[in-house]
Amino acid sequence: MARRKSLPIKKRRELPAFDRAEFERRAERARALMVRERLDALLVSSEANLEYLSGFTTQFAWNTPTRPWYFLLPREGEPVGIIPEMGVTNWRATSWVSEILSWPSPRPANEGLDLLKRAVLGLKRQFSRVGVELGPESRIGMPVADLTRLRDMIRPFDVVDGMHALRELRLVKSPAEIERIRRMCQIAGDSFDNMGALIEPGDTERDLVRKFQADMLLRGADKTPYVAIGSGQGGYDSIIQGPLGRKLKRGDIFLIDTGARYGSYFCDFDRNYALGKPPSDEARRIHDLLYKSTAAGIKAARVGHTAADVFAAQAKVLEDAGLVLGNVGRFGHGLGRVMTESPSNMPGDDTPLVPGMVLTIEPSAMYGEGKILVHEENLVITEDRAELLTRRAPREMPVLEF
Amino acid sequence: MARRKSLPIKKRRELPAFDRAEFERRAERARALMVRERLDALLVSSEANLEYLSGFTTQFAWNTPTRPWYFLLPREGEPVGIIPEMGVTNWRATSWVSEILSWPSPRPANEGLDLLKRAVLGLKRQFSRVGVELGPESRIGMPVADLTRLRDMIRPFDVVDGMHALRELRLVKSPAEIERIRRMCQIAGDSFDNMGALIEPGDTERDLVRKFQADMLLRGADKTPYVAIGSGQGGYDSIIQGPLGRKLKRGDIFLIDTGARYGSYFCDFDRNYALGKPPSDEARRIHDLLYKSTAAGIKAARVGHTAADVFAAQAKVLEDAGLVLGNVGRFGHGLGRVMTESPSNMPGDDTPLVPGMVLTIEPSAMYGEGKILVHEENLVITEDRAELLTRRAPREMPVLEF
Repeated sequence: MARRKSLPIKKRRELPAFDRAEFERRAERARALMVRERLDALLVSSEANLEYLSGFTTQFAWNTPTRPWYFLLPREGEPVGIIPEMGVTNWRATSWVSEILSWPSPRPANEGLDLLKRAVLGLKRQFSRVGVELGPESRIGMPVADLTRLRDMIRPFDVVDGMHALRELRLVKSPAEIERIRRMCQIAGDSFDNMGALIEPGDTERDLVRKFQADMLLRGADKTPYVAIGSGQGGYDSIIQGPLGRKLKRGDIFLIDTGARYGSYFCDFDRNYALGKPPSDEARRIHDLLYKSTAAGIKAARVGHTAADVFAAQAKVLEDAGLVLGNVGRFGHGLGRVMTESPSNMPGDDTPLVPGMVLTIEPSAMYGEGKILVHEENLVITEDRAELLTRRAPREMPVLEF
Repeated sequence: MARRKSLPIKKRRELPAFDRAEFERRAERARALMVRERLDALLVSSEANLEYLSGFTTQFAWNTPTRPWYFLLPREGEPVGIIPEMGVTNWRATSWVSEILSWPSPRPANEGLDLLKRAVLGLKRQFSRVGVELGPESRIGMPVADLTRLRDMIRPFDVVDGMHALRELRLVKSPAEIERIRRMCQIAGDSFDNMGALIEPGDTERDLVRKFQADMLLRGADKTPYVAIGSGQGGYDSIIQGPLGRKLKRGDIFLIDTGARYGSYFCDFDRNYALGKPPSDEARRIHDLLYKSTAAGIKAARVGHTAADVFAAQAKVLEDAGLVLGNVGRFGHGLGRVMTESPSNMPGDDTPLVPGMVLTIEPSAMYGEGKILVHEENLVITEDRAELLTRRAPREMPVLEF
């Protein structure tokens, strides 16, 4: 029998659910984009796009691939959820959309396809095109074989890529969305500040990551899907791996990077720590340059610039100092319902920055023998400047007692 | 500044990483299935299948859709990981496969497709067919538009469904896989036993679910992707929703269902509780019938029976008592790297049960005004019987002080 044990939880007022007006604005914007993209409807099945448009909130649908879940938003006419029967109660408790078509699932021979066909063929047909999640950075929430069958079932409608519209739709966040990201950044920031109390001699990377996740949950996070850790004597060699079984040691530098969720929205930032003794002069130098690179990125993140400009500003600081840029391929990205969204802060991404876009600023540099160091902050673009959503990392790498 | 606060963590020996022999057995079985399915290779991109075959372990790849990750296992010849450059260190730290093709990602115009083409066209060609995750219960880990492009790039090879092979491959678990599921069931069982200490007056569903997740993490879980809760006076109306903002009250009956992970493997079971006072006679009657139904399901889960037989044994108990079966569509399912795997315990699923299969037994029944009650246990099929991986739920619904 387990020892009975209470856990301390920090309670503060939850942010309110999105109101109906928020969803109506999303639908209105989506419909304007459908006209531009010549679509008669958007048919979505992935967590981010389905929940964004329908308001339906579920863990279940995204943890089991047995049953697909669909939302159809027509350019004209009523939106409809096309979902397994067992989800109707959950849908009604969370979605703004009352129209539902449901079927008794599992039914492997036909998982909702007949209902999809009926809904699509009932669309007002102008462009004969239905936008589906096909293009860059999409992950469709249905078996590809079912999509192939559906294509044939809904003629004369064509299945075309809806990601242009969906990408643009989600690029600019509403104030209510930004508040969720800000809340999550605060919670993770508090847990990062608590690192010295969490880590104990004998901890492995796995132990520390478990405690760090628990700490975020007890401070009000809802989910902790991404908590990576890199550790090693004097520095680490990957910013996206772990936790492994490695025991943390005095003299280590370690990083924790976290994409955790509040109200379905992500933070995505990291913090670096030295264990038991100050970092080497080299590590301090790199850390300081990354701090300055981050500052340059924050400054460059403003209306009139592009995502590529934000990269260039960060890269210049590091390259001027003769550093080799990190092997991540970009220096930050969009952030929202998914841990990484458009745009990419990298050469060639000419997405103009506009108010309401939420970005990570994430410069990294190589040093020593295959080591890498990274900084990361989250911000929102406003009319005249970037507003930080994270509390800025300390200028000097914290040295934890150990 | 956050209050500094340590957290208690239970440490026990971690289960060892899968050894090379385990992966070689998986590859050997996969290759035998490729011959049967007339495939020259399996090309996988989803978390479960890619990690199962390659050993590569990552949170990153599955939390960001920007960069796809691929593993190609040929029927003859060396397997190869086709991955973004930034993942090479992580791959080498976790995979048994040393052959890697990598590219600097993000590169939106061509995310690894040229490398995939090179790898596929280098295959020894006998059947001219490459198996990809297309069929039932699959979710491909790449944009559909990239798959469409790839199809044209790899002629004369055809892209065909690889799910028949992949489903069968993962149906029977090795002893090392079963130990991970058993460990996760123990951890979640300990947290369920601790429920009375976790819940406090004033808690909402969200608060309790946060604490329950933290509790599992501090007892050794790695991830808590699925923790649903249903609550209401005298009973709940959905087993797959929440947590919502509803405050828990004396007189409630609530359920928590959890799919949590240890070493990448899931448990999936639930427990019911009455808050502050005993359940009604009706709820007790349903609870008792579900207990008996579960017992019948456990007894029926043996070699010589099918998944449909396991359903029938559970359903008979409930139908003989005149109950309406729950609206879930099945009474349990396979369990492993994914929270729900094949088979489905439902009429028509004639999958024969064989040793090493891990199943949930999950009868549910409707009662009262739209209420539902569910039980769930996890077990493994052995030569002569089902062995429980969960500690059996108490015969009587626990009444928590409140």
